[in-house]
Amino acid sequence: MLHTHIDQTEEFVGRHIGPNAEEQAHMLKTIGVNSLDELVDEIVPNNIRLKEELALEESRTEPDVLSELREIASENVVYRSYIGQGYYGTDTPNVILRNVLENPAWYTAYTPYQPEISQGRLEALLNYQTMVVDLTGLDVANASLLDEGTAAAEAMTLARRSSKSKSNVFFVSQHVHPQTQEVVRTRAKPLGIEVVIGDELEGLPECFGVLLQYPHSLGEVVDYQHFCEQAHAQNTIVAVAADLLSLAILKAPGEWGADIAVGSVQRFGIPLGFGGPHAGYMATKDALKRTMPGRLVGVSVDAQGKKALRLALQTREQHIRREKATSNICTAQVLLAVMASMYAVYHGAKGIRAIAQRIYSSTFILNEALAQMGVNVVNERFFDTLQIESEKAQTILAVALENGINLRNVSPTSVAISLDETVSLADVQELINIIAEALAVEPVDIDDVIDSDADIAVPAEVARQSAILTQAIFSSINSETDMLRYLRHLSDMDLALDRSMIPLGSCTMKLNATAEMIPITWPEFCNIHPFAPDDQAEGYSILFERLSEALCEITGYDAISLQPNSGAQGEYAGLLAIRAYHQSMGQAQRNVCLIPASAHGTNPASATLAGMDVVVVASDSQGNVDVDDLKVKIAQVGDRLAAFMITYPSTHGVFEERIVEICDLIHAAGGQVYLDGANMNALVGLAKPGWFGSDVSHFNLHKTFSIPHGGGGPGVGPIGVKEHLAPFLPGIVDEQGKLSEDEVVGPVSSAPFGSASILPISYVYIALMGVNGLKKATQVALLNANYIATRLAPYYPVLYSGRNGRVAHECILDVRPIKDSSGITVDDIAKRLIDYGFHAPTMSFPVAGTLMVEPTESEGLRELDRFIDAMIAIRAEIAQVEKGEVDANDNVLKNAPHPAESLLSEEWTHPYSRKEAAYPAGMDPLNKYWSPVARVDNAYGDRHLICTCPSIEEYESK
Amino acid sequence: MLHTHIDQTEEFVGRHIGPNAEEQAHMLKTIGVNSLDELVDEIVPNNIRLKEELALEESRTEPDVLSELREIASENVVYRSYIGQGYYGTDTPNVILRNVLENPAWYTAYTPYQPEISQGRLEALLNYQTMVVDLTGLDVANASLLDEGTAAAEAMTLARRSSKSKSNVFFVSQHVHPQTQEVVRTRAKPLGIEVVIGDELEGLPECFGVLLQYPHSLGEVVDYQHFCEQAHAQNTIVAVAADLLSLAILKAPGEWGADIAVGSVQRFGIPLGFGGPHAGYMATKDALKRTMPGRLVGVSVDAQGKKALRLALQTREQHIRREKATSNICTAQVLLAVMASMYAVYHGAKGIRAIAQRIYSSTFILNEALAQMGVNVVNERFFDTLQIESEKAQTILAVALENGINLRNVSPTSVAISLDETVSLADVQELINIIAEALAVEPVDIDDVIDSDADIAVPAEVARQSAILTQAIFSSINSETDMLRYLRHLSDMDLALDRSMIPLGSCTMKLNATAEMIPITWPEFCNIHPFAPDDQAEGYSILFERLSEALCEITGYDAISLQPNSGAQGEYAGLLAIRAYHQSMGQAQRNVCLIPASAHGTNPASATLAGMDVVVVASDSQGNVDVDDLKVKIAQVGDRLAAFMITYPSTHGVFEERIVEICDLIHAAGGQVYLDGANMNALVGLAKPGWFGSDVSHFNLHKTFSIPHGGGGPGVGPIGVKEHLAPFLPGIVDEQGKLSEDEVVGPVSSAPFGSASILPISYVYIALMGVNGLKKATQVALLNANYIATRLAPYYPVLYSGRNGRVAHECILDVRPIKDSSGITVDDIAKRLIDYGFHAPTMSFPVAGTLMVEPTESEGLRELDRFIDAMIAIRAEIAQVEKGEVDANDNVLKNAPHPAESLLSEEWTHPYSRKEAAYPAGMDPLNKYWSPVARVDNAYGDRHLICTCPSIEEYESK
Repeated sequence: MLHTHIDQTEEFVGRHIGPNAEEQAHMLKTIGVNSLDELVDEIVPNNIRLKEELALEESRTEPDVLSELREIASENVVYRSYIGQGYYGTDTPNVILRNVLENPAWYTAYTPYQPEISQGRLEALLNYQTMVVDLTGLDVANASLLDEGTAAAEAMTLARRSSKSKSNVFFVSQHVHPQTQEVVRTRAKPLGIEVVIGDELEGLPECFGVLLQYPHSLGEVVDYQHFCEQAHAQNTIVAVAADLLSLAILKAPGEWGADIAVGSVQRFGIPLGFGGPHAGYMATKDALKRTMPGRLVGVSVDAQGKKALRLALQTREQHIRREKATSNICTAQVLLAVMASMYAVYHGAKGIRAIAQRIYSSTFILNEALAQMGVNVVNERFFDTLQIESEKAQTILAVALENGINLRNVSPTSVAISLDETVSLADVQELINIIAEALAVEPVDIDDVIDSDADIAVPAEVARQSAILTQAIFSSINSETDMLRYLRHLSDMDLALDRSMIPLGSCTMKLNATAEMIPITWPEFCNIHPFAPDDQAEGYSILFERLSEALCEITGYDAISLQPNSGAQGEYAGLLAIRAYHQSMGQAQRNVCLIPASAHGTNPASATLAGMDVVVVASDSQGNVDVDDLKVKIAQVGDRLAAFMITYPSTHGVFEERIVEICDLIHAAGGQVYLDGANMNALVGLAKPGWFGSDVSHFNLHKTFSIPHGGGGPGVGPIGVKEHLAPFLPGIVDEQGKLSEDEVVGPVSSAPFGSASILPISYVYIALMGVNGLKKATQVALLNANYIATRLAPYYPVLYSGRNGRVAHECILDVRPIKDSSGITVDDIAKRLIDYGFHAPTMSFPVAGTLMVEPTESEGLRELDRFIDAMIAIRAEIAQVEKGEVDANDNVLKNAPHPAESLLSEEWTHPYSRKEAAYPAGMDPLNKYWSPVARVDNAYGDRHLICTCPSIEEYESK
Repeated sequence: MLHTHIDQTEEFVGRHIGPNAEEQAHMLKTIGVNSLDELVDEIVPNNIRLKEELALEESRTEPDVLSELREIASENVVYRSYIGQGYYGTDTPNVILRNVLENPAWYTAYTPYQPEISQGRLEALLNYQTMVVDLTGLDVANASLLDEGTAAAEAMTLARRSSKSKSNVFFVSQHVHPQTQEVVRTRAKPLGIEVVIGDELEGLPECFGVLLQYPHSLGEVVDYQHFCEQAHAQNTIVAVAADLLSLAILKAPGEWGADIAVGSVQRFGIPLGFGGPHAGYMATKDALKRTMPGRLVGVSVDAQGKKALRLALQTREQHIRREKATSNICTAQVLLAVMASMYAVYHGAKGIRAIAQRIYSSTFILNEALAQMGVNVVNERFFDTLQIESEKAQTILAVALENGINLRNVSPTSVAISLDETVSLADVQELINIIAEALAVEPVDIDDVIDSDADIAVPAEVARQSAILTQAIFSSINSETDMLRYLRHLSDMDLALDRSMIPLGSCTMKLNATAEMIPITWPEFCNIHPFAPDDQAEGYSILFERLSEALCEITGYDAISLQPNSGAQGEYAGLLAIRAYHQSMGQAQRNVCLIPASAHGTNPASATLAGMDVVVVASDSQGNVDVDDLKVKIAQVGDRLAAFMITYPSTHGVFEERIVEICDLIHAAGGQVYLDGANMNALVGLAKPGWFGSDVSHFNLHKTFSIPHGGGGPGVGPIGVKEHLAPFLPGIVDEQGKLSEDEVVGPVSSAPFGSASILPISYVYIALMGVNGLKKATQVALLNANYIATRLAPYYPVLYSGRNGRVAHECILDVRPIKDSSGITVDDIAKRLIDYGFHAPTMSFPVAGTLMVEPTESEGLRELDRFIDAMIAIRAEIAQVEKGEVDANDNVLKNAPHPAESLLSEEWTHPYSRKEAAYPAGMDPLNKYWSPVARVDNAYGDRHLICTCPSIEEYESK
């Protein structure tokens, strides 16, 4: 009794897991098993089952783990950073910090595939796209990419498919940030693109595309107008990595002729976070929009003819185009894009311009002072960065360090200094004093530098003449009160996990516990530059080490790379490792990737981008890999077999019994097994992919390991590999952003550790749950899914099941027979669920005409039953259509969802009542979620593509 | 240009103030003045106007001020506290921390006077009352009091008015926490109650009431059943200050016969915060409920017959009973009460019991170990506290300090140790080791102390046998997901500042900026015990000093007490100072307080409690003090004149021109001027009460200085005094909770510095705004009010105005003529405003049949116009009633507010349309706030008084 009296280490496990012991007992009885262990025995193949517990600590309490995190954080040393190189100091507006980044209404939302319940974040993203379009001077922008480096790589491939040039060369300016150069190189290699790095100012070779940096990595601002004309004359597409903030006062890329602009929006209020997550942006000329990668928010109309937003042109997306995909980007960086757009809304057009001007003025003053002191500043024109050439460069760095300041170490004889919005005149004076001390000269007093009446303006030839951010939203917020209400208004339009279950199959929308979120906004994690000296980031090192160890133990792998900042990035990195391994073994011809027909579309897309040929393996009638076909395909591809990609448990929600045999077949044929960890939530504590035959996996930390989905990102997709693949993990650049010679594979992300600042979430999750909690979570995830399957099977056939008729952690409900008998589609059911207060399950994936339901372990019995009851009630509504009791087209399903306004019309002509529409099946009106719009017309918006906010004129004429 | 380029110190001023420069210009034009200065000239009497700017710093940026706060915070040293004495370590559940304390939907709400838009916090408070009733075993509980000390004082006065005893003695057990004894003494003195302190275990003298502590301050648990029987036999009311958490396993006061229980709910998840704010509780037997002080939430029905909550028995409240009041409590501690109730909901009945048992078990083990070590522990029975007698007591304290631990220093030969929910077995071992070291004995290993199978249970004679928290809500939350959704659900039912203007006259519902809120949840401010050694709280000392200095400068006073934790407490403390001053001057007969008829009801209530006789001074037709009547009253009371209490600008929203003359009259007659600072928001930077004639004021930091209202508390009401009153400020108890002999006046709050932990809010506000911003805010507050008055005057007569026809920072709209012509009341307008998405203005204060509107400076033109347009549209709706165009009883006003459900009925019989009800005056349906209930029937609930949650049985039969 003593210890059970005192011990509370199990408490968090119970908080994370939805159903309590009594509820679990009830559910076990309902599905007809006696215990969780028995259920697992029924589901998980015996030959992959772990025989012992994971070698992790037991579960712990929230105060205990947060106290460990405080200690880890305290090992990071926050120096003032003037390193720049794509990462800058910024002040996150507190009202945005608290009410977006720390607010579950925003961070627990899913990607806005269901537009009716996502109008708030869609509006925020439309603002984001508008901001990017406006500042770049281009025509269309997507809703964010992963980071500047991958955006640049996407620009390269976009250029290749758009250019009329026959050249295979992509020319990268030597003025591009070093880490971007490395990512582009990594991406180019498997696609057979030749990257040439050089100084574009000395002439442009024949090439299909060019990547510039604006301003240059070391600060110079060049007018590229003439350059662009020349490039276009030789069919070269001009892409530029541009500092978005600088464009508030510098001539926009679209104005000087660029075709594509990419970059990071980090300095729009997103903490440094040791490199991420931030949002990458991409904008293009109109002509390129239909082949632009990434998600695109567009304006359409709803069934009532009212304006409504949704994701546009979805058929472009990689998961639909599969091996024909030209990109594998899937998850975006929505939460960060929302923050950046809100930063612009908060400051408004005037404020953004003032910030840019302030940075420029500070830099101007610093430059003047350095000139007076006889310091050799290389730059002729600049925005925020000055490069100093000096024999005493290393002394300058050292004196700065003594003062708690990091500068950029360019070379033994050169340092660079980048200023940002946080810089005051006192900071500029401090920099001057440091440099003076290092050079042993008299420091200049900045008050003496220039006439205080001087008007400091960017040189005319590179100055922006056009107005910025002229859309109404960027002048509508005058106060914090306005901002707070706007954020609340938008979030109120959306459904996230803070209001209801999000039963999206394959998405694992589990609890993102508050304790997990708390450390990520501590200054010790937020304010570290990714290229800060190693000894300032020891806290991060400890975190990475502990997290990696835990992930290895959970997954059975020997080494981990935390760098990939999305699941698809992880896939890509894993396949690169396989390719490089084969090459190292003298098997360079191994370039075929076998992929089952049931695979998620990112699998073939990633394989294609990794330079592999995709060969599809058939599924049998139960949705499993057709092992006979697999053998045929193995034989067919022979010694070209590089890899087999398989999701386990399968995308059909089933533990395939023959997984070990399948892995053996691949290995016997010289191939490597890539096990897609998307469904890892069904495996943790029960089986280790690294032990039952896989060579490499990625894990979606934003699924299994509790990082919130953020409305569509940030995601984190680390990969685990067996020892033989460890040398081929993504390369880590050094403090200067360069890859060392001994790295075999290049980096896949801009930052050495990807989305480092959100890794505490997963670490805290694992530490809180412990060996006991993690396993229990998996068991209950299986229980919850099987409970739903058992209860709904009489109403909706469960399409696939495994041994003993059990599903894994999700189940597919077959709606095709219903469609045949009633004309009611998965869409109709999904939209009707909104009236019931639910986000729909995954629609038509992996099988068209089905709904895939994944409850996760975090939903309790009450919410599961509420969902099940809603689905049963909907089945009864469908039955009325089947029987002809209600009109086939004018019914609660076809007309769903029903916004409040649509129910208050004077005339009511529908054959059902207003209350039947609004409060079906006796739901509590106090818990009503009102969809802000009626069903959104996707096709209309794609035909009339609008992807930015209306101008003030349009706005005012409303 | 240089500095304007760089300088951003004005930015926050613009963020706090709603209208931007253009909007201000438009508004000035509308009201017919040329500038803010001209407006001020028109409004503020010249003879009180400041001739120079405040001697404060200029406005600053958010990062700059927060960086100062980080430095201040770092001067606090967080030691582990085992001091106890009413304040205990607790773990605030992170989901509650983020989603209540740090969430504007909760903290910016107002007191739930408008029940229809407050159902969420009313439900939370009903849970709170239920929890208190259940744990104390009594019949009814209020919705919180200020702290344990004032609750005990309220228990004393409640006992006096309830007891049949003729005695004037209130017996206070010597086992009561010392600080509580002091507060009770302070309160008793002006009421002429004789407080006798002694050991009730040695027999009870004749007395009308007794105050016990359960468990004793030093830990002993006594069974008071027999004692109560004896007390009741002699007509003594038994009040007990009980540790609510202990009652989960100790016999409840209601079970052993107590009539009243009071105490603190701090250890239900509310941070120590150097003493506050916490919530005090009070529960009584049923017979006492109608004279119980404080607010009481009760269950009633709405116009649709559905369950609805509201404040019950409001006619009991002090602001209505004025000088007949028996208490002056007004503001409660709603935000903290909500947190505490959510802590109970989160842990549930089982969890709360487990926590209490865990604390007891830890204490039991410590006691066993100490016994084995031969340490003299005084206690026979205990819950969480052990008192050690030892010659080496001071050595024990010293060794503990060396280990970063605070124990309670009881006497030179005695220390006490209180354990709490944060204590682990390792902590217990550490304590054992410390004591062993101090006593130079061998430490005992706790694993050897007791058999690990031992069942540690409270001795049967004091053990609770009854179940706790049996209501459904305390077993409904199984997971963090459940908790998160419950919090969101409740907050969604309410209207707070994060969704719309709250134009409550006299309440100053201005922006509570996020930057101001951020420091209050830093561990360095949260985790300091109020009786920690001074040198551990130096950060707090710095904060108090800087805040006090700024407040003195702003108000013109010479000294400040930050102790009063509400406005009414401030009034009381100020009047005590005046009384003590007169006594010190040999003028003890001066005990009459003159109060204008227009005063807020707390003024006469506080005066009465301070032992003064109240004489009312008439108002003239313009709402000003009738100076002739004042002269008459001064003459009448002669040398009994103690004070004149006046609110300035007046509660009528007017700057009375004769204020200086009035102050002079009082002083000439030997009286002191108490200027109620409730309307200080109209004075800051323009005039200083301390300079134009006042001797003492309280300031509502939760109005003028941006502390959020928290749904009805915490408030902070520091007082400022001129030098001659400084010796009579509330006494500050020492580290042992005792008042030193040289203090003239006792403490008015339990904690030495009242609600210390939220003082950063006001300090940050002042620092951010600076001298320029503070003045500008006042000017714009005047502008906004006059803009509303000017625009609405054609529709609703503005009842009072000053020179030039201007109002101050608020205006009274006279609805009485409308009632006469249409039958539409202020209630109807207030409820109809809910349909328009607004919280109503203040109703029928200070004049029945009127609405008082205070926009504050934080509302921008768009929101002001939205409100004005709504009021104008409502006037048009009223006109239809006046003209007989619509039914006098069945119209949009009388039926307001309209919940969605009420608009969706099959039949629609009202003479207006559903859309006219829901979306009046073309409002945007996307911005619709839906009232969760129809108009609440107050009378029904008072007739059928229910103040707790339904039991599980009732719940399940729903």
